[in-house]
Amino acid sequence: MKTLRDIGEDALIARLVALVPRDENPAAAPGDDCAVIDPGADSPTLLLLKTDALVERVHFLSDTPARAVGWKSVARVISDFAAMGGRPSHFLITLALPPETPVSWVEDLYRGIGDCLEKFGGFVAGGETSRVPSGSAAVISIAATGSVHREHLLLRSTAKPGDALFATGLLGGSIHGKHLNFTPRIEAAEWLAEHFKPTAMMDLSDGLAKDLTRMAAASGCGFEIDESKLPVTPGCTVAQALGDGEDFELLFAIKASQSENLLAAWPFRELPLSQIGKMTAPGSGQSLTGGWDHFRP
Amino acid sequence: MKTLRDIGEDALIARLVALVPRDENPAAAPGDDCAVIDPGADSPTLLLLKTDALVERVHFLSDTPARAVGWKSVARVISDFAAMGGRPSHFLITLALPPETPVSWVEDLYRGIGDCLEKFGGFVAGGETSRVPSGSAAVISIAATGSVHREHLLLRSTAKPGDALFATGLLGGSIHGKHLNFTPRIEAAEWLAEHFKPTAMMDLSDGLAKDLTRMAAASGCGFEIDESKLPVTPGCTVAQALGDGEDFELLFAIKASQSENLLAAWPFRELPLSQIGKMTAPGSGQSLTGGWDHFRP
Repeated sequence: MKTLRDIGEDALIARLVALVPRDENPAAAPGDDCAVIDPGADSPTLLLLKTDALVERVHFLSDTPARAVGWKSVARVISDFAAMGGRPSHFLITLALPPETPVSWVEDLYRGIGDCLEKFGGFVAGGETSRVPSGSAAVISIAATGSVHREHLLLRSTAKPGDALFATGLLGGSIHGKHLNFTPRIEAAEWLAEHFKPTAMMDLSDGLAKDLTRMAAASGCGFEIDESKLPVTPGCTVAQALGDGEDFELLFAIKASQSENLLAAWPFRELPLSQIGKMTAPGSGQSLTGGWDHFRP
Repeated sequence: MKTLRDIGEDALIARLVALVPRDENPAAAPGDDCAVIDPGADSPTLLLLKTDALVERVHFLSDTPARAVGWKSVARVISDFAAMGGRPSHFLITLALPPETPVSWVEDLYRGIGDCLEKFGGFVAGGETSRVPSGSAAVISIAATGSVHREHLLLRSTAKPGDALFATGLLGGSIHGKHLNFTPRIEAAEWLAEHFKPTAMMDLSDGLAKDLTRMAAASGCGFEIDESKLPVTPGCTVAQALGDGEDFELLFAIKASQSENLLAAWPFRELPLSQIGKMTAPGSGQSLTGGWDHFRP
């Protein structure tokens, strides 16, 4: 009998999508950072929908400060809205917790959620708390709406062969702290959407190796990266930059002719911007393995 | 140290709401069946948001057929949209599952979700699958958007003393099967909103004793019920009708002067409609105990 461990996350999603009714005119294909709902041609904005979950002993340790877990839980979702060129609006917080959970832990979790929403925008609109059996892992599930100006929408599926590939920030080693206190790249993403609209963009949550492979597959392209150009976190290896995951930086493609202008105009002094490679014709380029899979060791 | 078991669900929510940014002009107070977002005065509809979770060994047994679990997971949310006078739109499915979960179990879960959305409307717009440690309970978290015509919006907080109280269907004994295969009262709710707009409405998920107490508290009223009028499921006791929960029927209040006309006009031959009591002045009436609490035995 096949289990989730056997087939992995991407293959599972592909099988499930076929089993349920879906919007016939989605503004984004399944598998992008968010679902995109078009409220109608007279609306200047599109509705973004996103859900994400943090699991105790998988995404955070039982002794991780709850306030940091709260920050991370909503920052991950905000990073996905950024990746589409959008902003967060309303959050629903679903908690499945063992009955022995201290009330103070849940309050600290909410304080961390509040910290992040105060900083990046967004309201808590509702929630649900449920019990899991004693000893089961706590699950924090965040669903949110966001919005994006129709002309600023950025997809992962629209890169073209020849486009230049960029990444923000530093990659690798997030486990040493960044995975808990990272900054969703809302501001940089919005600036890009306005000034140098990428041909494709996504956030780096499962590691460059896996996420770039996904962007290339969604866009029907190949890719090449120049490992010497990777913005590797000091103290980390190239393999860590490719595979660790939870970087929550932006990965994007732009027309190659815009690369120099973009590098010259980049206004975020404290946020590195690195040209790391290019998109290539389908079937060409290189392949990368590694990266995070929810169902594999 | 206080734990969730000590304070219970309603007290927990009240403490958490104060810790996070909230919309200053909500169209519904925290604690209603759904969050209500007003997209602006020129929109004829309001946006409804809802999240809900099913936990293995709490809401379903490990050997419950996955297709029934899938139906239940989205039917619960659809019931909440019905309670506000609305309809479902887009669903996000978040699964936190042990890696030993058979792929066929997840596919059957999605088939059940599909069955329910085919029948009552709504699309799956996205999802997330994550691992929980081996042996931890599976968690199925459903978030969804819905919509309601602005003038059909029904809240639980707007009943008035003297209003007549009604319930649809039969109450009690849901554990014998109805909790898995119930019908969300979308059609009846929509008919009510159009023809006999209730002064307040909610769905019965945690048992009449608990839910009616909530409606009365939210409305600033008391209540009285006539136990001899309760639509008790054959084979069940009054205590079960009050306390079992998971009935997923509609509980609503209407102006007392409309009661007879409503009973005469009720068009759903297979769905009982019972006048069970009335709302009373604040501080008067009776009190009921019992009902389902997620954190208590």
